[in-house]
Amino acid sequence: MPGTILSTINTPDDLKLLSQEELLLLAQELRSFILDIISVHPGHLGSSLGVVELTIALHYVFNTPYDKLIWDVGHQAYGHKILTGRRDIFHTNRTLGGISGFPKMTESEYDAFGTGHSSTSISAALGMAIACQRRGDDKRQHIAVIGDGAMTGGMALEALNNAGVSNSNIIVILNDNGISIDKSVGALSNYLLNISISPGYNKLKNKIWNTLGKAGKKLGPNSQKLIQNIEGAIKISLLKGSNLFEAMNFRYFGPVDGHDIDKLVKVLSDLKNIKGPKLLHVITKKGKGFEKAEKEQTVYHAPGKFNRETGEIQPVTGENTIPTYQYVFGETIVELAEKNDNLIAITPAMPTGSALIKMMNKFPDRVFDVGISEQHAVTFAAGLASDGIKPFCTIYSTFLQRAYDQLIHDVAIQNLNVVFCIDRAGLVGGDGATHHGVFDLAYLNLVPNMVVAAPLNEQELRKLLYTATLYTKGPIAIRYPRGEAINSNWNCDMEEIEIGKGEQIREGKDIAVLCIGHAGNYALQAAEILEKDNIRPAIFNMRFLKPLDEKLLHNIFKNYQQIICVEDGTINGGFGSAVINFAQENNYKNYIKKLGVPDNFVEHGSKIKLVEICGFDANGIAKNCIFASSLNN
Amino acid sequence: MPGTILSTINTPDDLKLLSQEELLLLAQELRSFILDIISVHPGHLGSSLGVVELTIALHYVFNTPYDKLIWDVGHQAYGHKILTGRRDIFHTNRTLGGISGFPKMTESEYDAFGTGHSSTSISAALGMAIACQRRGDDKRQHIAVIGDGAMTGGMALEALNNAGVSNSNIIVILNDNGISIDKSVGALSNYLLNISISPGYNKLKNKIWNTLGKAGKKLGPNSQKLIQNIEGAIKISLLKGSNLFEAMNFRYFGPVDGHDIDKLVKVLSDLKNIKGPKLLHVITKKGKGFEKAEKEQTVYHAPGKFNRETGEIQPVTGENTIPTYQYVFGETIVELAEKNDNLIAITPAMPTGSALIKMMNKFPDRVFDVGISEQHAVTFAAGLASDGIKPFCTIYSTFLQRAYDQLIHDVAIQNLNVVFCIDRAGLVGGDGATHHGVFDLAYLNLVPNMVVAAPLNEQELRKLLYTATLYTKGPIAIRYPRGEAINSNWNCDMEEIEIGKGEQIREGKDIAVLCIGHAGNYALQAAEILEKDNIRPAIFNMRFLKPLDEKLLHNIFKNYQQIICVEDGTINGGFGSAVINFAQENNYKNYIKKLGVPDNFVEHGSKIKLVEICGFDANGIAKNCIFASSLNN
Repeated sequence: MPGTILSTINTPDDLKLLSQEELLLLAQELRSFILDIISVHPGHLGSSLGVVELTIALHYVFNTPYDKLIWDVGHQAYGHKILTGRRDIFHTNRTLGGISGFPKMTESEYDAFGTGHSSTSISAALGMAIACQRRGDDKRQHIAVIGDGAMTGGMALEALNNAGVSNSNIIVILNDNGISIDKSVGALSNYLLNISISPGYNKLKNKIWNTLGKAGKKLGPNSQKLIQNIEGAIKISLLKGSNLFEAMNFRYFGPVDGHDIDKLVKVLSDLKNIKGPKLLHVITKKGKGFEKAEKEQTVYHAPGKFNRETGEIQPVTGENTIPTYQYVFGETIVELAEKNDNLIAITPAMPTGSALIKMMNKFPDRVFDVGISEQHAVTFAAGLASDGIKPFCTIYSTFLQRAYDQLIHDVAIQNLNVVFCIDRAGLVGGDGATHHGVFDLAYLNLVPNMVVAAPLNEQELRKLLYTATLYTKGPIAIRYPRGEAINSNWNCDMEEIEIGKGEQIREGKDIAVLCIGHAGNYALQAAEILEKDNIRPAIFNMRFLKPLDEKLLHNIFKNYQQIICVEDGTINGGFGSAVINFAQENNYKNYIKKLGVPDNFVEHGSKIKLVEICGFDANGIAKNCIFASSLNN
Repeated sequence: MPGTILSTINTPDDLKLLSQEELLLLAQELRSFILDIISVHPGHLGSSLGVVELTIALHYVFNTPYDKLIWDVGHQAYGHKILTGRRDIFHTNRTLGGISGFPKMTESEYDAFGTGHSSTSISAALGMAIACQRRGDDKRQHIAVIGDGAMTGGMALEALNNAGVSNSNIIVILNDNGISIDKSVGALSNYLLNISISPGYNKLKNKIWNTLGKAGKKLGPNSQKLIQNIEGAIKISLLKGSNLFEAMNFRYFGPVDGHDIDKLVKVLSDLKNIKGPKLLHVITKKGKGFEKAEKEQTVYHAPGKFNRETGEIQPVTGENTIPTYQYVFGETIVELAEKNDNLIAITPAMPTGSALIKMMNKFPDRVFDVGISEQHAVTFAAGLASDGIKPFCTIYSTFLQRAYDQLIHDVAIQNLNVVFCIDRAGLVGGDGATHHGVFDLAYLNLVPNMVVAAPLNEQELRKLLYTATLYTKGPIAIRYPRGEAINSNWNCDMEEIEIGKGEQIREGKDIAVLCIGHAGNYALQAAEILEKDNIRPAIFNMRFLKPLDEKLLHNIFKNYQQIICVEDGTINGGFGSAVINFAQENNYKNYIKKLGVPDNFVEHGSKIKLVEICGFDANGIAKNCIFASSLNN
């Protein structure tokens, strides 16, 4: 239940009626409400707790939705959603038909721009600011709230560089908590710390001027030269280029305590009246106000269900014996690294999520967390590979989209031995449209020199990773889903898999179901379902999208009349499409049906429900087998 | 003919035998040789002229190829190529079978990393530096030469952020000439100018320390506090954060005159002995040493053939009456902008190449050159579109790969009305593998909500651009090639084209040739060739890859037995693949042949020769029609 003040806040207009003291109480209630809901309806926690005061202050000072407020990445926007009319449906967060876990334009006019991927907010805010200028409106404010982690994403810096020369009402709020999901890394992060722990940049600036003023008197007429020189130095370096953001021509303010509402309200009100691009450096604590979340920030980024009082995380009962693909990846890469001194791993800011953390702990100098910078990550890997290292570049499928050019231009054209470990491939569930890794099969298939593989299960993931260490003919991508595998004995012997070689995994007749990746398990389930109908499809785990196992395909097309292709990626341009092209090129006229993700963006919801909606779950496959079977009669 | 000293330089080892005075003469000879060759064998000019001294100094001081030298973008590497064993084949530059216009690992061991696209060099250098460290080699140097324009590309900044915390032998040479192809833009460019025109950052630093030292004596014992305060300020801000690059934890040196070999040799020799990441700011003049190239830097970036003495550019005789697609685009967008106040254009650093310069001159506040920052360009466009503006985001096909995530995540998911004007689509000719725009059809086709169109000729480009101004249901991409159109009367009336509507452009029987984009003209030529054989293929200009004109396709598949698909993009996943999927879904069994770019990277050479090699030129299409025709007998 929301507290007494929060209960009255249906829009930010209600917020504006509160006294400063009531704002403080509201912050408590808002934090409490987020904890109440997220402890039972899992979602992102720490980020939203960290910006409770900032959220209130922003909506208190600015005139949203007229003023545009953009939350970079967006998983910190729960407080924003609750204060902007979504309090009573907040418990539907991330569930099918419920509200999105990220800002979404179609959900609320207060969500000025949809986010999900990092570092987009400044570009979007600049676009809106220019649009506004063109209408002759010089009043509207455009606020991008961006974390220190997201600030290292190249496009944020591109946007600063561009926005710095615009004369527009842009306020960048740098939400500096020293962490993205894992600890922030890189030079910028150190730099921000340096600014923050110094006695205060602005204070110092004033101090020097004061000192110079007093000293001037003492020094008498001879001091002119000294003062002039120092003034020059300070003007040029301190005022003009003294600060990364000022170098980008943003006026820099802060740092301020992001949990001091009074201060925030005051500073933000002041900023409203200053023209041109501005940056406010706000120091916050991720997980603020909930002890465990403050202490274990990575764990409480998205903790799942937890005890509202103690913070204890509820174990996932029953299913917790099934290993995740990430677990198997983490264990296997350590084993491979132990045996192969040449293996180096790279992650753009996801050491925990990708489970590379295990290798990082064991071989700290052989895992590179390069920060949120997928583009750099891939070309960095290319550089390593060009000099004889075997880099395992571990990136979530949806984020690899951001390094597509680097994958083509720096890796594939030069045919370098980079291993792409593509995590979170396929439908991801609650994170929704922005995060589904459903395009990778199609966009990788069209790149020359690539090998593209997807394991059926955790044993095969292990074997493919091992195979990748032996493969020296160019880049290889191994894509696997988020979460649970199939509870096989994952810790199998390492075994090389021939590149481009598929296998039959279930005998059958008339109908062949051709699968790639984890979706093959749905086909196996479908075969079980179909036994009662006496329909026995043969099932093939093709393993490789590229190169296709043409020998096996010829056998299949000759021996089975109906072909059903199953993949957890876009039907458009993916595995099924490749099979159809093979059939056409070889003049096979068999019936072929493609199952996978259709040509529209899939929303959020539980993964298995989404698979069902797309129609490639066990029942969907079974239905298609029944139809295919009817063609034989 | 190379000069007497240049004639003796077969590898950088020969260079090292020269005296400092001979180096100066060599610089003259090298510059002269580049001009001799490029005036008759066209290529990039200005960039290489600008780094003649730097190139010599780098190879003189460093031990290449052991030390790794990476040229960002790479069109400034002509001097490097000439000094590293490619002097006598330099005239084959950019031609089929000749040397590449960019550094290329397979071409020479001195080309440490292939480049072409901007801003990759620091990432690659870091990879090599880490690889080297792992082998226990702490001697090798890794030098990235990067322009001020390329430095604004997000991935360069990502790389700085990462490299700043590494303890590796990286030297970034910031080649600051204030221009990429067009004038450099953005805050960073102003910032670099500020550093450069100041009396010199390092000089100033020393001056202050000297002044303080002297003043200290005069002030006597009371001066302690003053000195302390100022010291603190300078240490924290001047030394630690005073400079964008120092903020990234690079040691900053310079600026130095990039045309002073003696100075360069001295500074580079010093840098060799300083550990950790370093940046040397070098000021050069693009086109240096050739008057016209210095004055008209954009024109002489890649001037085509020119008079070696006067610099006068040779008009392209005969063909110069055929308008280019770029010309028509430039004229048309001005017309559209005149009628539609809501139209805004965006270019990432290519106002001249894309011909947006015309609109820029007429409507300076409605064209945004955002610098080399494709990612930002696209999300900036999304921001504009989210607020009611109609942005025309003009990006070269090959560079749009860099904004693939933004296209999906910020534009397509939100179904925003962004118009993508995709220039340099298809094979581009001399720029080669890194620059061919052959993947776009395939990678765009798999994105939901996109409309993807390609005009047959310049009239259709014009009509599609007009159509895009009227289309309000989401993003639309219009892709068109580099260079000459087909000499139709381009200045036709504006006319809306129905979205997803193709047309028959030549009558015929039995065989249907289905085309998309400019390649349709090759099909029309093929039909002429085939008249003598009495083979009369019907030709269809499909115009839209997405949505496909299914009504027209049903007609075609019912009325023609043999189908040939032609596109200037990858066969894999492109237009032909889409047609095959349509046929399969609709149970058509017609013969289908796909012509286009095969599944390998295509090298450099003349565009029409490359089209011929790929087999979709007029003769290639004709041959396939003859074969298809034989199937009827």
